This record gives sequence, C-alpha cells and structure tokens, in this order.
Amino acid sequence: MCAPGCLETVHHRLSRRNFFKGAGATAAAGALAAAYPPRPAAAQPRSFERVVDMTHTMSPEFPTFFNKPGIELERMARIENDGYNMYRWSLIEHAGTHLDAPIHFSREDQHTAEQIPAEQLVAPLVVVDIKARAAESPDARLTPDDLKAWEAQYGPIPDGAAVAMNSGWDQHAYTEKFVGRDDDGGMHFPGIHAEATQYLLEETGAQGLMVDTLSLDYGQSTSFDTHYAWLPTNRWGLENLKNLDQVPASGATVVIGAPKVQDATGGLTRVLALV
Amino acid sequence: MCAPGCLETVHHRLSRRNFFKGAGATAAAGALAAAYPPRPAAAQPRSFERVVDMTHTMSPEFPTFFNKPGIELERMARIENDGYNMYRWSLIEHAGTHLDAPIHFSREDQHTAEQIPAEQLVAPLVVVDIKARAAESPDARLTPDDLKAWEAQYGPIPDGAAVAMNSGWDQHAYTEKFVGRDDDGGMHFPGIHAEATQYLLEETGAQGLMVDTLSLDYGQSTSFDTHYAWLPTNRWGLENLKNLDQVPASGATVVIGAPKVQDATGGLTRVLALV
Ligand SMILES: [Zn+2]
Ligand SMILES: [Zn+2]
Repeated sequence: MCAPGCLETVHHRLSRRNFFKGAGATAAAGALAAAYPPRPAAAQPRSFERVVDMTHTMSPEFPTFFNKPGIELERMARIENDGYNMYRWSLIEHAGTHLDAPIHFSREDQHTAEQIPAEQLVAPLVVVDIKARAAESPDARLTPDDLKAWEAQYGPIPDGAAVAMNSGWDQHAYTEKFVGRDDDGGMHFPGIHAEATQYLLEETGAQGLMVDTLSLDYGQSTSFDTHYAWLPTNRWGLENLKNLDQVPASGATVVIGAPKVQDATGGLTRVLALV
Repeated sequence: MCAPGCLETVHHRLSRRNFFKGAGATAAAGALAAAYPPRPAAAQPRSFERVVDMTHTMSPEFPTFFNKPGIELERMARIENDGYNMYRWSLIEHAGTHLDAPIHFSREDQHTAEQIPAEQLVAPLVVVDIKARAAESPDARLTPDDLKAWEAQYGPIPDGAAVAMNSGWDQHAYTEKFVGRDDDGGMHFPGIHAEATQYLLEETGAQGLMVDTLSLDYGQSTSFDTHYAWLPTNRWGLENLKNLDQVPASGATVVIGAPKVQDATGGLTRVLALV
C-alpha cells in the first residue's frame, strides 16, 4: 500500500526528469512513425494444437510500477442476498499483465486501446531468451545482439511479430525481487535496450514488444527511451507476461486479449499463446 | 444515467422475485454439474487465416442491464504534464462485451474468472442464427429446434464448443431497441430458452454460451433460468457479442480474452474469432 502522495511523487519524478526529453523524443518518434509504419503479418494459414496462458492472475497484491494496488474489488451483489454475485473494480490501466497502447507515451494522433486494429492483436510470437544474463544482474537488457542471435537461429523476425523478452522474471512475481527496490527508491528489473528497440523499428516489421517485467524499459531507466521510441510509431507494448518458458522461441501465435475501451491508454489484458 | 437507488431497485427486484427459486435452482444445478461436466475440445490441429473482432467498444454510453454507466474513466496522468497518459477505471463486471464466470450465478464451489482453465477460452465456434424470428419479435428465444437445425446442417455440436446466438441485436447497440425498455420498466431483447440450455447440457459437450444481447436470458425473463442452469455447471457465458454475421456458422475458433482477476465473477472481455 502506498501512502497518500506517493503516486504524485512518482509522477513528479517522471515529469521532472523526463518531460522535456520526453516531449522531444515524442516529436522525433512522430517522424519515425511515418518512416517505419507497422507491417501486418503475412496472410497465410496458421495452425495450433494447444493453448498456453501467458497471463498473471491480477489481484491487489500483484506488484505495480506505482507501488500501490493495481485493482480493488468492491462487492455489488452476493448470491445469498441478491440471487447472483457481482463486483465493481477500481483498476489502474497499467497494472498486472497489461497493454501499453500507443497513446500511453504519445500525443493525440496515435492509437488509443480501442483503435488498435484487431489483426495487430494476433501475431507471430518471437521469444528472446536473456535469462542467463538476467540471473547475473537484474539490470540486464535485451540488446540488438540478442535479436541478431535469434535471427541467426530462426531466420528473420517475421512481419507483424510480437517480440517477447524472456528474462525469467515471472518467477519472481509476488517477491521483492520482481520490483527490486533499492535504498534510494530506484528499481532493478530487466527491460529492452533502446538500441534493440531501434533495431526492431529499422530492420524488422515487428509490431508488438512484450516483457515479463514491470516495464518495457529496465528498472533503472529514468528516460523511458524504449517507451518513447516504440509506442509513438503506433506499435503496442505488453508488460508482466508469464510462462515464456512454456512456448517455443519461434512458431507460436500470440493472441492479445486487449480491452477495447474508448480513450484507454492500455489496460488489463488476457494473453494466450496458440502453440 | 441512473438516479441514486436505481441499481438497488434492480437488486431488490431480482432478489424478491428469484431468491428462493434461484437458491433452489442452484442446488439442482450443483447436481447437474456432476452429471454433465464440461467436455474439452478434441485435441486436433486447428488453423485460421484471418481475425474477426467480436467485441463492442466499451464506453460510459454502452447500454447496461443496470441502466447505469458500466465504466467511468478518471485521468491519472497527462503527457503534457506528466510525460505519459494514464487513466483509472471504475468498471462494473457485467457490462460491455463481457464474461459471466460460473460463480456469477453459483455458490462458492464453482469457478471464479481466474479459475476457468485457459483451454476453455479457445473454443470451436458454433453460430446459431435466429435473426428472422428476432426481427419479428424482440422476445424471440433460441430453442432446441434451432440447435437441431444447426446440427442437421453442420453435424453434431463439437465438444468444448462455444455456442453463439446471432439475433442481429448488435446492430441495435446504442439505440433504445438494444434494451427495449417498456412502460413498466421491463426489457425486450432475445436470449436463450431454458430448454435449449438443457439440450446443450444433456446432448452436447459445449462449454460456452454466447449472445449478442445484454443477457443469456431474454429481456422478459424474471427467473434467469438459463443463467441458473448453465453457469453452476462450471460453464461460462459471454454477453454483448458483435459481428456474428462476419464469421461462419461452423468451423471458426473463438478466443475469449477473459480477465484473469482473482475472485471476479466475470468482466470486460476481448473476443476475437479466428476464421
Ligand atoms: Zn504499461
Ligand atoms: Zn453478465
């Protein structure tokens, strides 16, 4: 639980450090979006035999970037009294396994959650394993070399791909290591290096970027370079994935059950892999 | 918008008319659940080429069973001030295109939203068309004869199927006809006849029941027979579907992007058909 004012402190830290840089990066990314429009997946039959759930169970205990509960349930009806059960939720958009819509780090001309085309939510799944480095340091990042190593083994990253970082961090959910807060209030968990993000924009037609940690940018980031480079190109992000060890590095399809909410900047998402 | 006390009125009407009947029906359905456990879909490769979005855009204007907004967004961050955009949602579980988890009309021994096995959320899609009768009367119901006619044309309803009523009602979303409120406060929209529900339980291995209207039971129902017969057998429901005309009557796969929220009785859901 976060004392009153805590979220505001996070806001101020973000805005103090990053507002001008962020605003500049957003403008540059607008140009990037024109230069690198997302490419749809190739129209070819895809097949599958089984389902892997890549979603954490959401609860008030699931750790959040903001260090306060991401969801709270209020009971509206109880079967013993009302004949049925029902709750109302109070839900922060960026908590649990959730979507980052382009508008999360963009100006008004990029997609809100409900504007993302449905075809972009069913994508060839690319899983890039950085578990060994992440086990050595929670500040590990996925780099262009990791992407090139994947391509050397499996071929070019396909158009329309959802590229996922497997840092093994889903194992740490509900432990202090998941956020990795230090004595200065900083956080330590793996993320995507800005150079890898740039590589994906320039060299591939990938349209989704997924991590098994709290944020596309690693915990030590104060400039959120990957968010500012990726989302304003009308590409989506997905955070707090689970079970990346249960899907193949290449060949699966991921279905992003993103909430179709008007004006939303993201939100709680069911992610199912078809293998 | 609903005046204060309106939701309470709905609660009281539900509980006054149905509490005893509902409690009895639930006990009987507990026995039914043992008699008719859901059967999983056959493990065989499935393939697809395109995606159809079966989800309405959720907004405060989307009509609800409770005649009050199903969602309200409160802005928490704005990019001009904070470097990013974010909202908090207040969300009623049973609004918009949404899941009915078994617990919605069951006692505690049936599945909450996060307990539904992921394999049950990827299902062979069966679409039963009752548009002609629904065009004649908003009180039309899907009957066992409709199911038998489907089976005569396409073969037995497959194990694990999600059976969808296509009444054409998605065309009426955002108009008064969608809810069909009459002068007595009653509602008029199509739903599933209890005898069709019983047929599905006894004669098929279907595990999901979907409608393009506000409720599995038709608007004139005061006893919610389909809810009370279906959900307590650990089967799920899905309400307010869209675009059933854009999928084939047989052969598609539906992916239910249901929220994996601890204790939830359902919730806002992204529904994508793979055709
Ligand atoms: Zn986020
Ligand atoms: Zn419902």
